Amino acid sequence: MNIIDVIDKKRKGDELSKDELDFAFNGYLNKDILDYQMSSLLMAICINGMTDQEVFDLTDIFIKSGEVLDLSIIPGVKVDKHSTGGVGDKTTLIVAPIVASLGIKIPKMSGRGLGLTGGTIDKLESIPGFRVEVTKDQFMKELNDIGMIVCSQTDNLVPLDKVIYSLRDVTGTVESIPLIAVSIMSKKIASGADKILIDIKCGDGALIKDDRSAKELRDLMIRIGNVYNKEVRCIISDMDTPLGACVGNALEVAEAVELLDGKVRNNLYDLCVDIASNMVSMGKEISIVDAREEVIDAINNKSALAKFNQFVAYQGGNLEEMRISDNKLEIKSTKKGVITAIDALIVSKVSNALGSGRTSIDDVIDYEVGVFLNKQVGDSIDVGETLCTLYYNKVSDNFNITDAFKIEEK
Amino acid sequence: MNIIDVIDKKRKGDELSKDELDFAFNGYLNKDILDYQMSSLLMAICINGMTDQEVFDLTDIFIKSGEVLDLSIIPGVKVDKHSTGGVGDKTTLIVAPIVASLGIKIPKMSGRGLGLTGGTIDKLESIPGFRVEVTKDQFMKELNDIGMIVCSQTDNLVPLDKVIYSLRDVTGTVESIPLIAVSIMSKKIASGADKILIDIKCGDGALIKDDRSAKELRDLMIRIGNVYNKEVRCIISDMDTPLGACVGNALEVAEAVELLDGKVRNNLYDLCVDIASNMVSMGKEISIVDAREEVIDAINNKSALAKFNQFVAYQGGNLEEMRISDNKLEIKSTKKGVITAIDALIVSKVSNALGSGRTSIDDVIDYEVGVFLNKQVGDSIDVGETLCTLYYNKVSDNFNITDAFKIEEK
Repeated sequence: MNIIDVIDKKRKGDELSKDELDFAFNGYLNKDILDYQMSSLLMAICINGMTDQEVFDLTDIFIKSGEVLDLSIIPGVKVDKHSTGGVGDKTTLIVAPIVASLGIKIPKMSGRGLGLTGGTIDKLESIPGFRVEVTKDQFMKELNDIGMIVCSQTDNLVPLDKVIYSLRDVTGTVESIPLIAVSIMSKKIASGADKILIDIKCGDGALIKDDRSAKELRDLMIRIGNVYNKEVRCIISDMDTPLGACVGNALEVAEAVELLDGKVRNNLYDLCVDIASNMVSMGKEISIVDAREEVIDAINNKSALAKFNQFVAYQGGNLEEMRISDNKLEIKSTKKGVITAIDALIVSKVSNALGSGRTSIDDVIDYEVGVFLNKQVGDSIDVGETLCTLYYNKVSDNFNITDAFKIEEK
Repeated sequence: MNIIDVIDKKRKGDELSKDELDFAFNGYLNKDILDYQMSSLLMAICINGMTDQEVFDLTDIFIKSGEVLDLSIIPGVKVDKHSTGGVGDKTTLIVAPIVASLGIKIPKMSGRGLGLTGGTIDKLESIPGFRVEVTKDQFMKELNDIGMIVCSQTDNLVPLDKVIYSLRDVTGTVESIPLIAVSIMSKKIASGADKILIDIKCGDGALIKDDRSAKELRDLMIRIGNVYNKEVRCIISDMDTPLGACVGNALEVAEAVELLDGKVRNNLYDLCVDIASNMVSMGKEISIVDAREEVIDAINNKSALAKFNQFVAYQGGNLEEMRISDNKLEIKSTKKGVITAIDALIVSKVSNALGSGRTSIDDVIDYEVGVFLNKQVGDSIDVGETLCTLYYNKVSDNFNITDAFKIEEK
């Protein structure tokens, strides 16, 4: 077999066999196929698409490129979740303890942030002492002992996804429904859960720009799940506005605790209840209405908060010692009116510039900094009132974060 | 400007500005843009195509990446030719002296062969003493003195084409009408001729597979020519059958001499007369019928042969010393009938395996070997009669060259 022939075939829009996909992708993992050949093939896939059979075959090749976790020795239903990445997205920190407190096992491996969206692992690392790296034995023990774990993805899980994703990131081949589906589903299936909830972020600032693409991705991931007998449900959620009031690592952990303590009622709360209800509905095979009641109860009776604290302690974290910077800058409004939009992209760029994110893989994160939105979409604002508060440690560029707020006269 | 944004734009099928094309392509030449990014962009161009404006802009960027020859100090009309590459294609060796003998200047830079088709430069190097590398001054002097030159392309002519073509060759991005047009026309325009004849090879074994693509390429090259006020004519010729009876370097030079000596009347003769007539028609601004008469005269009265000998001597070549291997293997037919096809691809593979071509850039060519077709398409053949003769120097694989001949019973 010859890589040029494989590339030519996809360039012409023909279907690749599993052998051809295997030759190309595992060849790339083994460094027999070169970067510039794989990027050419990835672009042909981006433009010409993939058939369902190609997607199923490639998912299988991805899964088998590494270890597959077998969670069957642990009793109970295991439900996993994934989000395609949003600004201020701390839903895992909230949803996992809610669902685990209701008796469903949550085995969750997460990533670090790169680019504009923070990673759950980075957020957890803002808690002093918190161990994000665990052995396989520790993973199984924690999941069995307390019903949940959130930890760093092991190196041996779908290694093909790591190398392909890195290449897509620098070759303009990120926006491809089949490649996104293969990337997400291979990791989720290799992680060993029985059922999977995917939160598809949709909007200008997200990977998926429009509703039609979101639905296409949803349907494709459900069909991949079917092949592996895994129930998959998807939520399509807007990603125009930051999720919740906090963007930045320790700030987001603090907001998660507040929400689990029943003190937050915003778009983050609505989304977390929605995600958790779907996970409970799948896990217990009950209606979404009944599941929703259980989820709200778990927040109100503080059992989810107790689960969160148990989980943090289990992984060595000490919430008391978590710090948010004392240096605050309040940004005042120069307009009077109603806030009709808050641009997630601008907020995330400001937060990253303060030090809360990475632009390259080697950047060091400042966990203490970020943005607190004093006002939410729909709130009224007066001249001189605080729009948001920047928590900072270093002097940085002068940001035009006020541009993130669209204020219209009443 | 960001290369990812440029790639994304072309992936979505939008038109790139000249600034964007310049950023990407000159960035690649300067090594700011990486191989895997350029290959991704090239694949997007292959699939999504280019507008005329993009093609014109990219041609200009290619031309200006290196030196542009100014031939205006040499009197007379300068006409150049190019072939997209065929098996046994020694037309330059025949056409250039014919046209030059009729008073038209032929400034021709050629390439070496890579892959299945031999290069004119390799053929000339089978003549002992022949100098293919000349300085710019030598180029101008020879063109002025004897009205023609065929030499190796200088390194400084369209350097962008060299790096882009090398990358296309290994990334499955060769088959693109706009990229082929830019590659050919940038070199021809930078070479400084006033008028250009392009021989577009069309067939299964050629770069251009079908008549529709050939016409698309033709029309696009004519439009590029218009931008630079250069008259461009194209011939679309079949590339299913080898051109002439000889494939292999010295063998092909010998066949060229035979043809100029009036001793060859085959598909090669017809094509050479066709190409030369178009070049003379352009150069003298006369009808193709009148030009054809002059061309046939130049062969018949041996003035073209004299020009060829003058040209070879000028560049130091000694035809008397040119050798063809003494080791011959005659391949006999096991069938009786009429030859209805000779597969150029198989013949070229056999010739290359004997040592007449390169598969990688560092391969050393054996000028003495190749294939002589004793029979042509349309000839009758008997069992035991010779189909072709292999000239060899080393023992090689046992070739199924008989597979190249399609023989049908009468």
